[in-house]
Amino acid sequence: MAMKLWELAGAEDDRLFSPYCWRVRMMLAHKGLSAGTVPWRFTDKEAIGFSGQGLVPVLLDGEREVHDSWAIAEYLDEAYPQRPLLFADAQAHASALFFRLWCERNLHLAILRLVILDIHSHLHDRDKAYFRESREKRFGKTLEEFAAEPTAALAALRGVLDPVRPVLVQHRYASGAAPGMADYILFGAFQWARVVSPIRLLEPDDPVYAWRERMLDLYDGLARKAKAYAVWT
Amino acid sequence: MAMKLWELAGAEDDRLFSPYCWRVRMMLAHKGLSAGTVPWRFTDKEAIGFSGQGLVPVLLDGEREVHDSWAIAEYLDEAYPQRPLLFADAQAHASALFFRLWCERNLHLAILRLVILDIHSHLHDRDKAYFRESREKRFGKTLEEFAAEPTAALAALRGVLDPVRPVLVQHRYASGAAPGMADYILFGAFQWARVVSPIRLLEPDDPVYAWRERMLDLYDGLARKAKAYAVWT
Repeated sequence: MAMKLWELAGAEDDRLFSPYCWRVRMMLAHKGLSAGTVPWRFTDKEAIGFSGQGLVPVLLDGEREVHDSWAIAEYLDEAYPQRPLLFADAQAHASALFFRLWCERNLHLAILRLVILDIHSHLHDRDKAYFRESREKRFGKTLEEFAAEPTAALAALRGVLDPVRPVLVQHRYASGAAPGMADYILFGAFQWARVVSPIRLLEPDDPVYAWRERMLDLYDGLARKAKAYAVWT
Repeated sequence: MAMKLWELAGAEDDRLFSPYCWRVRMMLAHKGLSAGTVPWRFTDKEAIGFSGQGLVPVLLDGEREVHDSWAIAEYLDEAYPQRPLLFADAQAHASALFFRLWCERNLHLAILRLVILDIHSHLHDRDKAYFRESREKRFGKTLEEFAAEPTAALAALRGVLDPVRPVLVQHRYASGAAPGMADYILFGAFQWARVVSPIRLLEPDDPVYAWRERMLDLYDGLARKAKAYAVWT
């Protein structure tokens, strides 16, 4: 039975912008697996009620339901151990976990400050109030206030990337010679921005820029073909 | 011919406090290698003039000189490939490099704010003026100003460790099931503090605390036996 992946969509069914869902898309491609997209909006809590929680990605593989991008990665290696592994061993698992936590704590926040209004403008109408209310509560300020200093946010983003740059100068991918979990995690954050916003996050002479191009090319241009702003290329 | 390692010492020859030299000590033990210590002070530039630069660690292995803890790690794997590797593959190299850059950029600064005056007080007299002058120039403030807010620095340190904690809950070491480069890098920073300062950096219920105990026990208690403040145990 084909897999199904519930993915966060904007007003258009094919504007898929969640960084966590993009991780899963890339992970599935890494393993040579595919899954049909079920477009989902923030307020469609009932549609994924079967998962026992209210966030995507949710993967349905036959009868088996898995949610949370990290749990999905672990599941895919467990269920398909003969396909290319996402975690080659405990060391790879530990280092990818650290990378993920670093990314979510630092990079995601910097990018969100730059694209939150673009996200809002691409949401389905039925999601707009939910998104505004939940994010304004989380950040203790209006979306507009949260996005008020894009120049500072862009400088912060570029500073956050400092520890990544030398890795991408020495290695083709954040995971070394071949793409892996660190790449899918990092790329998810950039694709999140690319799908909703024309903002230029990186200068072309940034090693992260060239890496991002390589990621867009992976798996027959999977991410490059997605509905997004193509201003980078 | 036995290896020699030039290591940063305080007033006492055996108060060895450089985080970078501690990395190398642990790396050597990882590979089952030993090296005699040559105590070195910041101002002993001529003593390591043969290395073409002015910082330790400097390793002399027969006729071969290697300096910089990262270059030493790469050298040890290259020269002793039959012994346990520090970098099992390109993925391990890439992830350790990221971890190192993150650690130096974030953790080192947080710890330094807490122990810089203790470092200064343990220095050899001939190093004190050099240390004060070079650090005050680097930070644009006096050592005392740099150290002026220990409560804030301690809170910052504990926040910096956020992405490490879940890794050490799930894995015995930052490198997974067995200690590796990420552990030696992280531990070097804690041992740096331990050798010069009685400050309590971690609470006993912090997963990083239990990990640090494991690191102190490694290699027959190599780091625990060093001249240091034993307040943690």
